[in-house]
Amino acid sequence: MPVTFEGPLADRGAWQLANDSCSVAMAMDAIGTRSTMLVLREALYGTTRFDDFVRRTHSTDAIVAARLKLLTELGVLVKEPYREPGVRTRFEYHLTDRGKDLLPVVFGLMQWGNAHLQADDGPFRLSDRATGEPVVITATTASGKTVALDDVVLTANGDWAEQDH
Amino acid sequence: MPVTFEGPLADRGAWQLANDSCSVAMAMDAIGTRSTMLVLREALYGTTRFDDFVRRTHSTDAIVAARLKLLTELGVLVKEPYREPGVRTRFEYHLTDRGKDLLPVVFGLMQWGNAHLQADDGPFRLSDRATGEPVVITATTASGKTVALDDVVLTANGDWAEQDH
Repeated sequence: MPVTFEGPLADRGAWQLANDSCSVAMAMDAIGTRSTMLVLREALYGTTRFDDFVRRTHSTDAIVAARLKLLTELGVLVKEPYREPGVRTRFEYHLTDRGKDLLPVVFGLMQWGNAHLQADDGPFRLSDRATGEPVVITATTASGKTVALDDVVLTANGDWAEQDH
Repeated sequence: MPVTFEGPLADRGAWQLANDSCSVAMAMDAIGTRSTMLVLREALYGTTRFDDFVRRTHSTDAIVAARLKLLTELGVLVKEPYREPGVRTRFEYHLTDRGKDLLPVVFGLMQWGNAHLQADDGPFRLSDRATGEPVVITATTASGKTVALDDVVLTANGDWAEQDH
């Protein structure tokens, strides 16, 4: 079963969302390319330097430069100067809180790929530092309850009738 | 702080993953386009019929047909015949378990877009049917503990040295 819509959304045939009101479409427009997602993967993995992004994403200087610029403009990465002896000042790229909020997206893709596209569940295991338990990306409540798709309820935020759909 | 790599992965400078071994890259190759993600969004929302996918994703017949074919071939959707009186047999598309596993990806994108791309936190609220609590997409353990990025540990799955990186 899919999600349930409630309130003014309950009659699913009566409404549709404009793509410029849909957060999924907006997020895909902003960050939804393979090369962007690989740069994000590396940022989550702790990569900060231009040459390392290029090498580890198997991409080109031009593409990585464009992706780092985009992600910096989006506030996902912050650019910080560093200097090694005898070399001109260079820049490192660090994840912001806005960037860390992409953990569920990037690791969600990894989890799905591990389960459904890899023969051997993929190269990595994620675990929790404190307990050693496996880490999964899932829908949960604040009290830690996992919520299945058919237990998710969608309701309108604010006054639905006054919004631009 | 980013994730921590342990075991044979601990020396981050000593290895890199080939894109055809990376589940993030593989998942983006399989489903990582905006139009595919919007079809998936609709499938999670309960849309099953061709015309409804076209209308609700604001896409074209050709694009939706291609995306439904792709997602059926991937085993994310299953195609089932239905027949209304006086009309030839048509097909509905239903999410499989493999498709439901994409909940964290699609709703993760929504959650990030709601928080960081929308002025008013986006059009929808997700809640749990049983408790009414807000639903979030997050990294958790089986015991329901939320795991922050800097508490995620990545270890190699299987014999790292024997793998193709």
